[in-house]
Amino acid sequence: MQSTNDNGQRKRLLTGDRPTGRLHLGHYVGSLANRVRLQEEYECYFLLADYQALGDHIDEIDRIRDSVIQVTLDWLAVGLDPERSSFVIQSAVPEHAELHMLFTMLVSVPRLERNPTLKAEMANLGKRENISVGFMAYPVSQAADILLPKAHIVPVGEDQMPHIEMTREIARKFNRVYGEVFPVPDGMVGTVPRLVGTDGQAKMSKSLGNCIYLSDDEAAVTAKVRTMYTDPTRIHPTDPGHVEGNPVFMYHDAFNSDKAEVEDLKERYRAGRVGDVEVKQKLVRALNEFLDPIRERRSYFEQHMDEVKHALLAGTARGKKVAEATMAEVRAAMRIASYID
Amino acid sequence: MQSTNDNGQRKRLLTGDRPTGRLHLGHYVGSLANRVRLQEEYECYFLLADYQALGDHIDEIDRIRDSVIQVTLDWLAVGLDPERSSFVIQSAVPEHAELHMLFTMLVSVPRLERNPTLKAEMANLGKRENISVGFMAYPVSQAADILLPKAHIVPVGEDQMPHIEMTREIARKFNRVYGEVFPVPDGMVGTVPRLVGTDGQAKMSKSLGNCIYLSDDEAAVTAKVRTMYTDPTRIHPTDPGHVEGNPVFMYHDAFNSDKAEVEDLKERYRAGRVGDVEVKQKLVRALNEFLDPIRERRSYFEQHMDEVKHALLAGTARGKKVAEATMAEVRAAMRIASYID
Repeated sequence: MQSTNDNGQRKRLLTGDRPTGRLHLGHYVGSLANRVRLQEEYECYFLLADYQALGDHIDEIDRIRDSVIQVTLDWLAVGLDPERSSFVIQSAVPEHAELHMLFTMLVSVPRLERNPTLKAEMANLGKRENISVGFMAYPVSQAADILLPKAHIVPVGEDQMPHIEMTREIARKFNRVYGEVFPVPDGMVGTVPRLVGTDGQAKMSKSLGNCIYLSDDEAAVTAKVRTMYTDPTRIHPTDPGHVEGNPVFMYHDAFNSDKAEVEDLKERYRAGRVGDVEVKQKLVRALNEFLDPIRERRSYFEQHMDEVKHALLAGTARGKKVAEATMAEVRAAMRIASYID
Repeated sequence: MQSTNDNGQRKRLLTGDRPTGRLHLGHYVGSLANRVRLQEEYECYFLLADYQALGDHIDEIDRIRDSVIQVTLDWLAVGLDPERSSFVIQSAVPEHAELHMLFTMLVSVPRLERNPTLKAEMANLGKRENISVGFMAYPVSQAADILLPKAHIVPVGEDQMPHIEMTREIARKFNRVYGEVFPVPDGMVGTVPRLVGTDGQAKMSKSLGNCIYLSDDEAAVTAKVRTMYTDPTRIHPTDPGHVEGNPVFMYHDAFNSDKAEVEDLKERYRAGRVGDVEVKQKLVRALNEFLDPIRERRSYFEQHMDEVKHALLAGTARGKKVAEATMAEVRAAMRIASYID
């Protein structure tokens, strides 16, 4: 099924990643799995937001540079289709920066400061001296990312909804002041719960070192699962264990396709009839079964970098074409296309 | 005489105006007279900062649009030479927005908030709800304006020096983090005092309605001088009057080329031997003598709008070429020119 607008065209969807490292199982559960489905239905633009990544990584340009390729490989590996969807490098479409600058005129400083997600993230960065003007303005930059291809739909986590709300306000304000150009996009909040880290922390995060990457090999997965956090109240395999809130079982639920095995393990775990070792061994097998086709596709593309390059060039070219068309409309609406007629 | 760099090329200079209205005598005294001289010595880029003007005029796009033409006519009328210098429309060079966005990553929020000129201007805008993110970031935008053509020199008023200091910091920081790209520009502080308004206020300002415009005709000048603020302590022409701090004599000093006449008027004014009417009549004559050649050139160009258009197109094309060259260097230094080699 395809979602179409009134003209029968497929509706546009924008989402993407900041290229600051390879993608992990948390990304898969939280967004990539969803994207693989959504690309059937929508005209998708997947953004590699390298300029945005600079906001808090100005002196890690090598990491961003490398991550653009790694993230692209991860996308291809999970089955995002560069023919059907457009992989767009943000820095290669300067229209992003231009629309961002125009949008900064439409948002007041207090409105930006009231954004609860931004507020929390700025608090996380610690001292205000650590916060760049660019970082503070990133919700406006995201609005430009979304509205440049005139996306109708933006799949987001709950925490990103304040940014969507700001994007909607910007779209409405532009349309009101200069004339109708932008659709007012909708956020599509996923129902999938967030995947905890291997250490039991609420979130997989590179900086916490608690991630299993989509590109991890079997040895890495085995090692990470072996040291994984389980039920801290359980000392011996014969102690009754807790399944709920236990990361090992959360991963079984998310990735083990043998649902009967998972139910059997849970029952025995609760009854104190299975050791962590067996539960983890079965998780290693399940994760490797899940990751094998992803690794296989990744390996194919690593050996065919010309195809990766083509995916980026072709997608970015499509993104740029759409961006140019939108900016032409923006300039016409603002009548700054030409000052002397 | 020409100022050259080590390669024998003329040094570059950037300055400009926000197109929010026609230019007045205050602009002439404070900057235009200086520009007419400086264009002999430097490779000048004169920027029509229309995007920057949006920062506090988002719903006055028609005024900005009209002002781009009016300011260009004023520039031509005072003798800025579009063959020798480049008149650049900011919005037609999207590289401004791109470099601005990159620079926002290099400036911390507290650093921006400490800028005393910005602080004063933000206070003038009243409620913080009135301040757009774009307005708050305009010193960073100015840094991009200056560094995009790699200007060495920026003629400024004393109050603009904090922006030059910020521009110097940004240039140094970019060079340190990514490699040497930008010259560290110098501000050139004018020695010319600010011209008071016709109402005696410290500054000519459109919003105060105390301006004599370069494009005012004789009738307008006569009317404005007639109601001009003089010496409030003087009731009758036979009262001894004050020359110092008296706007009418400040204007005589600035614009009356007949210095003997000015000295004679001052002497008689102090002695109570001349009325305001005569002093003002002579000022009207002096101002019209000063303005006549400016009006004549303005009238010529109003009748030759094709030349005005050519000046803008050719200057903006030169500005864009220089901007593209700088952005190519920026991308090469940051190695975001291409992610797959």
